Amino acid sequence: MLFHVHMEVAIPHDLDPDRRAELVAEEKARALELQRSGVWPHLWRIVGEYSNISVFDVDSGDALHALLSSLPLFPYMRIKVTPLAIHPSDLKAQS
Amino acid sequence: MLFHVHMEVAIPHDLDPDRRAELVAEEKARALELQRSGVWPHLWRIVGEYSNISVFDVDSGDALHALLSSLPLFPYMRIKVTPLAIHPSDLKAQS
Amino acid sequence: MLFHVHMEVAIPHDLDPDRRAELVAEEKARALELQRSGVWPHLWRIVGEYSNISVFDVDSGDALHALLSSLPLFPYMRIKVTPLAIHPSDLKAQS
Amino acid sequence: MLFHVHMEVAIPHDLDPDRRAELVAEEKARALELQRSGVWPHLWRIVGEYSNISVFDVDSGDALHALLSSLPLFPYMRIKVTPLAIHPSDLKAQS
Amino acid sequence: MLFHVHMEVAIPHDLDPDRRAELVAEEKARALELQRSGVWPHLWRIVGEYSNISVFDVDSGDALHALLSSLPLFPYMRIKVTPLAIHPSDLKAQS
Amino acid sequence: MLFHVHMEVAIPHDLDPDRRAELVAEEKARALELQRSGVWPHLWRIVGEYSNISVFDVDSGDALHALLSSLPLFPYMRIKVTPLAIHPSDLKAQS
Amino acid sequence: MLFHVHMEVAIPHDLDPDRRAELVAEEKARALELQRSGVWPHLWRIVGEYSNISVFDVDSGDALHALLSSLPLFPYMRIKVTPLAIHPSDLKAQS
Amino acid sequence: MLFHVHMEVAIPHDLDPDRRAELVAEEKARALELQRSGVWPHLWRIVGEYSNISVFDVDSGDALHALLSSLPLFPYMRIKVTPLAIHPSDLKAQS
Amino acid sequence: MLFHVHMEVAIPHDLDPDRRAELVAEEKARALELQRSGVWPHLWRIVGEYSNISVFDVDSGDALHALLSSLPLFPYMRIKVTPLAIHPSDLKAQS
Amino acid sequence: MLFHVHMEVAIPHDLDPDRRAELVAEEKARALELQRSGVWPHLWRIVGEYSNISVFDVDSGDALHALLSSLPLFPYMRIKVTPLAIHPSDLKAQS
Repeated sequence: MLFHVHMEVAIPHDLDPDRRAELVAEEKARALELQRSGVWPHLWRIVGEYSNISVFDVDSGDALHALLSSLPLFPYMRIKVTPLAIHPSDLKAQS
Repeated sequence: MLFHVHMEVAIPHDLDPDRRAELVAEEKARALELQRSGVWPHLWRIVGEYSNISVFDVDSGDALHALLSSLPLFPYMRIKVTPLAIHPSDLKAQS
Repeated sequence: MLFHVHMEVAIPHDLDPDRRAELVAEEKARALELQRSGVWPHLWRIVGEYSNISVFDVDSGDALHALLSSLPLFPYMRIKVTPLAIHPSDLKAQS
Repeated sequence: MLFHVHMEVAIPHDLDPDRRAELVAEEKARALELQRSGVWPHLWRIVGEYSNISVFDVDSGDALHALLSSLPLFPYMRIKVTPLAIHPSDLKAQS
Repeated sequence: MLFHVHMEVAIPHDLDPDRRAELVAEEKARALELQRSGVWPHLWRIVGEYSNISVFDVDSGDALHALLSSLPLFPYMRIKVTPLAIHPSDLKAQS
Repeated sequence: MLFHVHMEVAIPHDLDPDRRAELVAEEKARALELQRSGVWPHLWRIVGEYSNISVFDVDSGDALHALLSSLPLFPYMRIKVTPLAIHPSDLKAQS
Repeated sequence: MLFHVHMEVAIPHDLDPDRRAELVAEEKARALELQRSGVWPHLWRIVGEYSNISVFDVDSGDALHALLSSLPLFPYMRIKVTPLAIHPSDLKAQS
Repeated sequence: MLFHVHMEVAIPHDLDPDRRAELVAEEKARALELQRSGVWPHLWRIVGEYSNISVFDVDSGDALHALLSSLPLFPYMRIKVTPLAIHPSDLKAQS
Repeated sequence: MLFHVHMEVAIPHDLDPDRRAELVAEEKARALELQRSGVWPHLWRIVGEYSNISVFDVDSGDALHALLSSLPLFPYMRIKVTPLAIHPSDLKAQS
Repeated sequence: MLFHVHMEVAIPHDLDPDRRAELVAEEKARALELQRSGVWPHLWRIVGEYSNISVFDVDSGDALHALLSSLPLFPYMRIKVTPLAIHPSDLKAQS
């Protein structure tokens, strides 16, 4: 099932720059890995913000929480999850 | 370019039921037409709400406004548009 | 999977009293039916409000949206759905 | 009587990691203890957040405040309490 | 136990004036009756608003909901209930 | 005249524990002193929060500001003051 | 004592135009009368809004509520009252 | 001096369609007239909304309020005015 | 022209006490100087808050921004400016 | 296409003053460079705030995000982007 996920990143300004660079690199690696596995079909940047909007395709809320809390930047993100359903006017849902 | 669009529908309760049904049918027809044309790649229902989240792919803000204001339910919707950019960790953006 | 659902009811004051009573009775019948089926394990009234807090146990967001939009009072409710996961400190989750 | 409790945890990033781990372990022990005693019948994680939703069953507001402020993470939590009542459509309330 | 209750009244402007006067008179009678019974120890008007702040002293959330929903103006009020506890610096709580 | 006062306490986590304990003790002493003097007739804890709701009975806004800013925890509190008036349905206001 | 008062006017669009004109004229007459009496020293329009910001100088919250609720447009206004105190840097407060 | 003005239009759905068309036409004529006079240098539509963002160049707040309240749609708009100043990094402000 | 200005002061708790006292003294001196010059006709404290409400009388938004940003506490204040106009019911505006 | 951009600057108070001055100078240089290139046609200060309102003219959301994230103060700004369209009453849009 699909979930809409809004992530706002707020890394503290006083975090050690090397640690920060490391975290950002690990986050990217993990994000690519999850996208390759198929559970993270969409990932967009919000223009002008250190925030992103994603769509995840997972089996359950438990699975989604496990994925999100595995992100290296999880401790520095404010996340809002919105469950999605098929829209009756979605072209792909017409038979 | 891509835009994230949140639409919340609020048709007045005292609208004539036939007019309402007509509007909803026209809205669906128009939505399918726009999806077929490629400008409306994603359309999801928010679970439990008469709201949806969409992604539009258009050439400009003017083009998007023309599309949105052409929707039959436009007078009854509260719309919030968020411009999107390619995310540096998007799998499709890796070379 | 579990979803936390907050429903705020706002039936228009000028709705015909008989229609209102009918809707409320149908809502109760439907709520009891859904509870008996096991998909609606918890339903509480918020003190002082015409609102309730529920927990639903369904297979997907699509299933939940189908249930919620089948409620007779759905057109008059403002609903907010929050997906839940097992808490690591939940007694029932300890092995 | 029942209370709905929303807890959002915000441990400062600069807290000593050992102290943090200690606090989290103590919190879990205390949470399990309270659940075993029957006063904390429901505890869920909100997907994607370091927040939880609980239901407490206590004799009074004083009793609930004593329980909540006894939690080791209490100084780092933002808590919102909502009193609950039996819902007239609750299956368990039908005679 | 004590509850802090904020009530904001919003009677529709198009309600029949006689019905309105009747409701307001019934509300006052019921409020006085409840105050005399001891369950409603404090009732204040917020300056400049058609709102009030009250403290109720009842046995449970169910009892409070029964009282509040028995108020003739209940359908026209927006109510927010906050549970109270004894404050450790309350003079009356010192031994 | 009466004022409703909501105080939310937020002592910084990195304040020296001894200084904190000292401040809390001084706050309690001052609160008791003011209650004995009659200007602070009601003081309640909000369940689950480090916040309180009070009613003050003072001659003027100047007098209230002098009292509130004399509280040892004043620099660490977020205070909201709401002026109160006699409610026409207050039992004590009936003649 | 002084109170800061924000009034937002929202006369229903379907109010009879004659009744509306009558109310607005009565409001102006009452406002002038109160200003002449000295209790309403400042009255400003917020640019672009059907709102105003005022300062009242009255003996008590009860007196202010009596004045505000005597305004002909009171049933159509949303009012927020903020109590004021002498500022220690006010030129008029220096000796 | 410059003011940033956000206008959100909300014409009631039950307004007579002819009256509505008339108002919209009058609004456009008045907007063009004001733009020609130089006091309304910028006017943009917010994509997806019946709202606009403008910049006005007027001598005073009184002048701006007179202009805004002369708009035919003024009774149906929610307006927020923000005063602007020259930005020290504005290219046009460099000497 | 007149502007309504709301200033909320938030000096960091860890600022050196001497520097803080110095800033507060400089702020008071500057405030008195500006009041004497006639540009700052009203200054009130909000009861219970480290906030104030002022009215400034200046020639332009540029002039106001220059004044406000010259305040020694400006870096520690959250300021909201609202432009004012003469109210048609203002006693001083009647001829 | 045009975007409305609101930027609120919040440089941490404990940033080294030299680093701060350096950043502010670099920000100004970059802002002037972008204005000269034509992509940043409007830049205004909000009176009383360390915030600005701008209009950007760019080819896409990606181009805008690249520009905004190239600003030296980007890590210390809270940015909100609103896409604009030509207004049908814009004088420049009339033929």
